[in-house]
Amino acid sequence: MGGMALTGNKAVVYKGKGTVAVEDIGYPELILRDGPGVPKANVNRKCEHGVILKVITTNICGSDQHMVRGRTTAPEGLVLGHEITGEVIETGRDVEFIKKGDIVSVPFNIACGRCVMCKTQKTHVCLNVNPDRPGSAYGYVDMGGWVGGQSEYVMVPYADFQLLVFPDKEQALEKILDLTMLSDIFPTGFHGAYTAGVQTGSTVYIAGAGPVGLAAAHSAQLLGASTVIVGDLNEDRLAQARSFGCETVNVQKHDRLGEQIEQILGEPTVDAAVDCVGFEASGHGNQGEAPAAVLNSIMDVTQVGGSLGIPGLYVTEDPGAKDADAKTGSLKIRFGLGWAKAHTFVTGQTPAMTYNRNLMKAILSGRAQIAKAVNATVISLDDAPKGYSDFDKGAAKKFVIDPHGTLK
Amino acid sequence: MGGMALTGNKAVVYKGKGTVAVEDIGYPELILRDGPGVPKANVNRKCEHGVILKVITTNICGSDQHMVRGRTTAPEGLVLGHEITGEVIETGRDVEFIKKGDIVSVPFNIACGRCVMCKTQKTHVCLNVNPDRPGSAYGYVDMGGWVGGQSEYVMVPYADFQLLVFPDKEQALEKILDLTMLSDIFPTGFHGAYTAGVQTGSTVYIAGAGPVGLAAAHSAQLLGASTVIVGDLNEDRLAQARSFGCETVNVQKHDRLGEQIEQILGEPTVDAAVDCVGFEASGHGNQGEAPAAVLNSIMDVTQVGGSLGIPGLYVTEDPGAKDADAKTGSLKIRFGLGWAKAHTFVTGQTPAMTYNRNLMKAILSGRAQIAKAVNATVISLDDAPKGYSDFDKGAAKKFVIDPHGTLK
Amino acid sequence: MGGMALTGNKAVVYKGKGTVAVEDIGYPELILRDGPGVPKANVNRKCEHGVILKVITTNICGSDQHMVRGRTTAPEGLVLGHEITGEVIETGRDVEFIKKGDIVSVPFNIACGRCVMCKTQKTHVCLNVNPDRPGSAYGYVDMGGWVGGQSEYVMVPYADFQLLVFPDKEQALEKILDLTMLSDIFPTGFHGAYTAGVQTGSTVYIAGAGPVGLAAAHSAQLLGASTVIVGDLNEDRLAQARSFGCETVNVQKHDRLGEQIEQILGEPTVDAAVDCVGFEASGHGNQGEAPAAVLNSIMDVTQVGGSLGIPGLYVTEDPGAKDADAKTGSLKIRFGLGWAKAHTFVTGQTPAMTYNRNLMKAILSGRAQIAKAVNATVISLDDAPKGYSDFDKGAAKKFVIDPHGTLK
Amino acid sequence: MGGMALTGNKAVVYKGKGTVAVEDIGYPELILRDGPGVPKANVNRKCEHGVILKVITTNICGSDQHMVRGRTTAPEGLVLGHEITGEVIETGRDVEFIKKGDIVSVPFNIACGRCVMCKTQKTHVCLNVNPDRPGSAYGYVDMGGWVGGQSEYVMVPYADFQLLVFPDKEQALEKILDLTMLSDIFPTGFHGAYTAGVQTGSTVYIAGAGPVGLAAAHSAQLLGASTVIVGDLNEDRLAQARSFGCETVNVQKHDRLGEQIEQILGEPTVDAAVDCVGFEASGHGNQGEAPAAVLNSIMDVTQVGGSLGIPGLYVTEDPGAKDADAKTGSLKIRFGLGWAKAHTFVTGQTPAMTYNRNLMKAILSGRAQIAKAVNATVISLDDAPKGYSDFDKGAAKKFVIDPHGTLK
Ligand SMILES: [Zn+2]
Ligand SMILES: [Zn+2]
Ligand SMILES: [Zn+2]
Ligand SMILES: [Zn+2]
Ligand SMILES: [Zn+2]
Ligand SMILES: [Zn+2]
Ligand SMILES: [Zn+2]
Ligand SMILES: [Zn+2]
Repeated sequence: MGGMALTGNKAVVYKGKGTVAVEDIGYPELILRDGPGVPKANVNRKCEHGVILKVITTNICGSDQHMVRGRTTAPEGLVLGHEITGEVIETGRDVEFIKKGDIVSVPFNIACGRCVMCKTQKTHVCLNVNPDRPGSAYGYVDMGGWVGGQSEYVMVPYADFQLLVFPDKEQALEKILDLTMLSDIFPTGFHGAYTAGVQTGSTVYIAGAGPVGLAAAHSAQLLGASTVIVGDLNEDRLAQARSFGCETVNVQKHDRLGEQIEQILGEPTVDAAVDCVGFEASGHGNQGEAPAAVLNSIMDVTQVGGSLGIPGLYVTEDPGAKDADAKTGSLKIRFGLGWAKAHTFVTGQTPAMTYNRNLMKAILSGRAQIAKAVNATVISLDDAPKGYSDFDKGAAKKFVIDPHGTLK
Repeated sequence: MGGMALTGNKAVVYKGKGTVAVEDIGYPELILRDGPGVPKANVNRKCEHGVILKVITTNICGSDQHMVRGRTTAPEGLVLGHEITGEVIETGRDVEFIKKGDIVSVPFNIACGRCVMCKTQKTHVCLNVNPDRPGSAYGYVDMGGWVGGQSEYVMVPYADFQLLVFPDKEQALEKILDLTMLSDIFPTGFHGAYTAGVQTGSTVYIAGAGPVGLAAAHSAQLLGASTVIVGDLNEDRLAQARSFGCETVNVQKHDRLGEQIEQILGEPTVDAAVDCVGFEASGHGNQGEAPAAVLNSIMDVTQVGGSLGIPGLYVTEDPGAKDADAKTGSLKIRFGLGWAKAHTFVTGQTPAMTYNRNLMKAILSGRAQIAKAVNATVISLDDAPKGYSDFDKGAAKKFVIDPHGTLK
Repeated sequence: MGGMALTGNKAVVYKGKGTVAVEDIGYPELILRDGPGVPKANVNRKCEHGVILKVITTNICGSDQHMVRGRTTAPEGLVLGHEITGEVIETGRDVEFIKKGDIVSVPFNIACGRCVMCKTQKTHVCLNVNPDRPGSAYGYVDMGGWVGGQSEYVMVPYADFQLLVFPDKEQALEKILDLTMLSDIFPTGFHGAYTAGVQTGSTVYIAGAGPVGLAAAHSAQLLGASTVIVGDLNEDRLAQARSFGCETVNVQKHDRLGEQIEQILGEPTVDAAVDCVGFEASGHGNQGEAPAAVLNSIMDVTQVGGSLGIPGLYVTEDPGAKDADAKTGSLKIRFGLGWAKAHTFVTGQTPAMTYNRNLMKAILSGRAQIAKAVNATVISLDDAPKGYSDFDKGAAKKFVIDPHGTLK
Repeated sequence: MGGMALTGNKAVVYKGKGTVAVEDIGYPELILRDGPGVPKANVNRKCEHGVILKVITTNICGSDQHMVRGRTTAPEGLVLGHEITGEVIETGRDVEFIKKGDIVSVPFNIACGRCVMCKTQKTHVCLNVNPDRPGSAYGYVDMGGWVGGQSEYVMVPYADFQLLVFPDKEQALEKILDLTMLSDIFPTGFHGAYTAGVQTGSTVYIAGAGPVGLAAAHSAQLLGASTVIVGDLNEDRLAQARSFGCETVNVQKHDRLGEQIEQILGEPTVDAAVDCVGFEASGHGNQGEAPAAVLNSIMDVTQVGGSLGIPGLYVTEDPGAKDADAKTGSLKIRFGLGWAKAHTFVTGQTPAMTYNRNLMKAILSGRAQIAKAVNATVISLDDAPKGYSDFDKGAAKKFVIDPHGTLK
C-alpha cells in the first residue's frame, strides 16, 4: 500500500472550454481533499468507509461533453469521469463486506446509504454527499466535488453500500465492455424506458440515438417492447440503432414526427416515449436549438394516459443558452397538450443502484448486449482527449477508456 | 314514460360571455340529438345503453365558470352541468343491471366501458365517446356535445358501466350533500392527492382553496397526511380550509412560499404537493395572472424525488390569455428545477370511476365529510345564475343545485 | 343468417369419465339455453350483447383433461372448450363496436364488463356471469354453464367488452397458431411469471413443462429473465422447454430441487418461481401424488422476500383425491417456511384481458414465439378425441383444433 | 465513557419455561460477545458502526411470550427484548450521522444496510446479521444472538442505517408512549393492513385483538378504512378495540365469522383481512388450538381478488404443537378456497424501516394515537416479570418497561 502512494495517477482534466488534458493528479487517499469545485463543507471529509479502485474501465459520457463545451460553470482543473469500473486495491477501516480483489461497478450517483432518500432507493438524491443540494456524482460540476474517475486510480466512498460486486472475476473481464455500462448509461436508459411504462408488447419512441438513447432502446427491448423506434438527426447513430433491431426516423427530414411514426406502425402514436436528449435539443426540420422541442414532440406522439420517461438532462442554469428563459432553466412547454392527454412526466437522474444488479444479471447470462448496442469502443487514457473530440463530432460510439491496458 | 315525454325540462344554458339562463330544453331521449357543440359524428347517436335520470343534485363547478367567463370557444346555447346525481326513471333496452329507482352518481367523464382505455381504468380518456379527441364530459366545450345535467332530467349513456349505485335510498338521501361530490370534485381532489404520493404521515401542500383544493385537502387527510397546508389568496376560502383542520398560507402576502411553509413545519419543503389551480393562476405577491406560477412554486417546495399531482386544468388553447404563448397552451416552466429535483408530474383529469366507489364507502360510514369540507350550499335551479355569479366572486361555497326541491 | 340456423354445429362433448365424442349440438343462439351444467338462474339468459363466432381455432387444455379424467363433477353432455379464436359472423342488437368479419380472441374467463370486479380489471372473478360463484368460463364444470367452444360455432356474450380484435385479418391468419394461445395459456403463463415478480435479470424456476409451464417460461423470457429453469418429470416436455432456451431439471431424478438449481446457477435459490402444476402434483423422487409438493418445493428454492406465482389449479373439492383433506381442497403446506422467508403467494386464474392485448402486440411484431414454445399442433375436430388421449399420455404438444379446416 | 463501563445493566432474562428474571448482564460493548444463543460466526463480531443506548422504553411483545411459554428452543439465559427506544450515549468510531444525545427508535429487525435485501427495503430479511438464516432481531431465539433490550443499556449495530431519530427531544418525551410502538407493533400492524390492500373506504377484518391486532386496526383507520372489525375471544381486548372506534366480534360465540360480519356490514365479506394471530390460533366456537383456523376463516370472509395480510407469526418448527404436522410448521390450509377466490397471501415480518418514519410523522402531528389504541401501560424494569405474567393471562394492555424511571 505504501508503495502505491508513490505511484502516480494519470487522469483526464478539464482545462477550460473545449479542452481536456491527461495529467498526473496524485494517488488517491481515503479523504476528500480540497480542489477545483470541492465545496468547503466537503473539504477534508474522511472516507474510512471508502475504497481505492484500480480503474479497469471508465467511459466518456455526453454529460462530460456538456461541461467541456463550456455550457456550465465547471472550474478548470476539474478531474472528469463518473462512469467507473475497477478492482478494489485498498479498503478503509470501516469497510466490512467489500474485499480487496473485488471487481466492481460504481454507480455514478454517489450515495451514503444512511439518509432517508438512500433508504428508500432514491440514491440519485442522496442528502449527505453534496452540501449544496441533494444528489452527487464524481468529476462533475456542482455535484459535491468528488474527484472524477477517468484516471488510473480513484477513491469511492461508502463502498459497502455503493459498490456492485461482479460474482466472478474472469467472467467479469470477458464481459467488461458490457459491464462498464452499468455505472451510468445502462441504468439511465433503463430508467427512461421503465418510467415511460414500457412493458411487454409496447410500442416505444426513443428521442436521441446517442449512447443513452441506444441504452434506452435496448432496455425497451429487454422490457418486451414490440417495436422500438429511435429518432435522431445523425445518420450514423441511426444506423447504429438499426444494427440491433430498432426502427429509426431522421427527425431533420420531416416536420411531423407523428407521420414518421405512422409510416412504421400504421398509427401516429406510441404507447411510451423517452426523452434521451434533454435541453440541448434541436427542433424538428431545421429550427436550430430548441430546448423544449423534444418534450413537445413526445407529448404529441405518446398515447393518452401514457408516461414520458425523461432521463435527458434539463438544467437549472444554462449560461450558454440563446434564450433568456432557457438561461434560467425555464422552458416554453406545451403543458396544456400534456394535460389534455393526461400524461405523466418522470424526470431526473436514474437511481442507478435500483437497476444495476438486475442489469448485471442480464448481461452475465447473455440476455443483454449493451456493449454492442452502444458500439463500445476502447481507447487508452492518453487518447481520451481525442475520444472527447470524436464524440463531440457525433461519432456513433461509446468510448471506453482503458487506463491500464487491461483489455488488450 | 309517455307522460314523461310531455314534461318540460328546465336547464342552465350558457348565453354568451358572462351570462347563463334557466330555460326549457325539452325532456331527454335515449339518443344524442344535434345541438350546440355536438360534433357531427355524434349527432343522432343511439343510446339504448343509457338511462334517463331525474336529477336530485347537480353542482356548479369551477370549470363551468371557466366557460362562462368566456375564455373558451363554448357555443351559446350549450346546456351546462357535468356533476350529476339522480334517480333512474327510464332505462334503455340494452341496460341489464341498472334498475328504475336506483339512486346513482354519474362520473363526469363519460366513458364507454368497451375501449382499451376504459378496460384499463383510464375512463378519463375514453376513445369512443368524443369523436374529436379522447375524453368527454356532459355540458362541456369540445367534449363530445353530451347535454349537460344542470337540469331536471338528463340522459346518461353506458349506464351499466358508468353509474355508481348507492346501496340504500334513504341513507343516500341523508348523505346526499356528501354523495353529490362523487361526480367530480371528490375524485378529482383525491386523484390529485393520491398521484402526489400522499400517504400516512405525509406533509402536503395544496395550491388553491376552491372546491377542488378543499376536496384534495380532505382527501390528503383520508390518505393519512400528518399536516395539510392549503394556499390561496382568498381569505374566506382559507378560513374554510382551516374549519376542517388544515393549516393555511395566504400566498399574496409573501413572496416565498417555502418560508411560509417553514413557519408551519419547521422546514421549507413538503413531501407532496397538489396543483388545484391550473392555468388561471396568479403569481405570488401581486404579479397578476401567471399561468405557470403554481407549477413553479410547487416544484420549489416539494422534496426531491417527490410527485406533483396536477388536477388543476391546463388548456391546449386559451384565447383569452394575455401571453401569446399561453394562448396556445404553452407555458414557461422551470423544468430544469423539476428535473434537478427528480420530480414526477402527474397531469390530467381524474378517472372518476377509479375512486368514486371507495369514496362513497368512506362517506356512507361517516369517515369522509366532504360536504362540510367544501361548504356545500343548496340552491334551487332558478337560483343557478346567482350561484354562478356568487361563485365567480369567490364565495367559499360549493353550490349544489336541487332542481326538484328534493332536499328541502 | 337464416341459412346459418340450418347449419349443424359439431362439438366435442364429455361423455363420462375418460370419454369425449364429437356430436352435433345445434347452431348457437344469442341466448343461453338450458343444458348440462347450466345453473337455473342462467337458463334462457338473453345475450343481445353477444356474437356468434365461426371458430377458427380452439385448443385442448390441461384443465379440460382434469374433467375428462373424472376428477370433477362435470355432467355428461357438457360441451367442452374454453380456448376460442374465431370470426364474427353475427352480432346481437346491442353490440356497437364489434363488427361482422372481425377476427377475435375470446378470453376464457367470461366477464360482463359492468360489475365492480370487471371495472377494476379483475375479470377472472366477474360477479355477473356465474350465479353460483364469482368467475366463469366456457365449457367448464361449475362455471356458469356457458356452452364450450370446441365446436364449429359458438356464442360469446358481452362481445364489445370481451373480444380482442386482431388489427389485420391476413396477418392474423399467418400468426394464428400464436394468436390462438391468447385465449388462455399465454395470459395464464404470463400472469404466473408476472405475479412471481419476474423482471429484467431475474432467475426463474417454472414448475411444470406442460403448455402453461412452457407459456410461463416464454413469458419469463419476455419479461427479461436472465435464466429460466423448467422442472418436470416428462423428458419430452423438458426437451420442448430446452428447444427455446430454457434450462431444465427432471424432478423425479433428484430429491432436492435446490441442488438441481445450484448445478445450473451456482446457488440453490431463484429470484422468482411459478407453480404451473397445481393440485395434481407428484412428489419429488417417487412419492406419487402429493398435492402440496410443488408449493412446498417452490418455497424451498425461492429467495427470501420473493413472490410465488401460482396459476396452477387448486380446487375447492377434489372427489378423486386419495387424501381425505385433499378431497375438500385442504392441503398440508409448510406455511411456516414461507412465512419465515416472507414470501407472497399469488393465486387464482389469470385475468386474461389484463394481458392479452399486450401479448398480441408482442406476437404480431414477432417478439413472442408462443406457438413454437408450446409446440402447437393442429388437428381436425374429428381428431379431438385422439388429441385428448395423446395429451393425457403426456405428449409434449399443445393441440389446436381447426374445426373448419381453415389452417390447411 | 469509562464511568459508564462501571455501571451495571439490569435486564430481563429468560430462565426456562414460564420464568423470567431481572438480572445484571453487564454494561454493553461495541462488540457482540459470546452468550446464550449467539451463533459461533457472530461471536466477537465488532460493531464500530454501533451505538450504546440508554434505554428509555422497551416493550413486552407477544412473541416474547411465545418463547417464555416454552414453545421454542430459546436457551436459558437469553436476554429478552426487541422493542427498544433510547438515547444515544456512546457512538462507535464508524458512526457518522447519529450523535450522542439523539433520541431514537430501534427497528426490531436488525439490518446491515449493505446487503441486497437492505438496499431494496427488505430489511426484515437482511442477509448479513444472522449467520443461520436471513432476518434477525434482538433478544430472540434463532435470530443471530443479538442481546435483548429489556434492559438499562443496549448496543445497537449499524446505527447510521438503522436508527430513526426523533426530531425534537422534548416533543419526543411527550409522545414517548406512542413513539415506543414504532420499534415493532405499529409497523407490524401497519404492514398487515397495508399488504392486505386496505385503502380509503375499505371494509376490514382484523383477526386478533392483542397489541398487533389493535395496531393493525388503528393502521387500517389511518389508511382510510370505512369500517374496521376486530375479532377475538377475549372480551377485555374487544372492549379495547371498541374504545377507538372499531366494531368487534367474539369469534368464540359463533361458528360462522361471515354471519357475524354480515350483522355489521350487511354482507358477509370484507375488502381486506389481516391475520394478527398466527399459528397459536384457536378454532371458532370451542375447538381448542387449530393453527390454520385464522387463515382459513379469513379466506372465507375476504372478497374475491383480495389480499390477506399475515403479520401473525407462523413458525418453521413448533416443538410444542399437538399436531405432528404443525410441529414442522406444516398446516392444513384450505388452499383450494383461496385459489378459487384468487387471493394473494402476504406473509412474513414487517420491514419496520419501511414504515416507521411515516408513522412517526403521523404520531408527532397527532394524527395517530397508537398508545391509546393498544392501551400502553408503563411498568418498571423490576415489574417486568409481573408484566409478562399479566400479559400472558390476556390483559388488554401493552406493557412498556421504563428502566430508568424516565416517564414518571
Ligand atoms: Zn455518464
Ligand atoms: Zn444518502
Ligand atoms: Zn366539475
Ligand atoms: Zn371507452
Ligand atoms: Zn385452458
Ligand atoms: Zn363483471
Ligand atoms: Zn415485538
Ligand atoms: Zn442487510
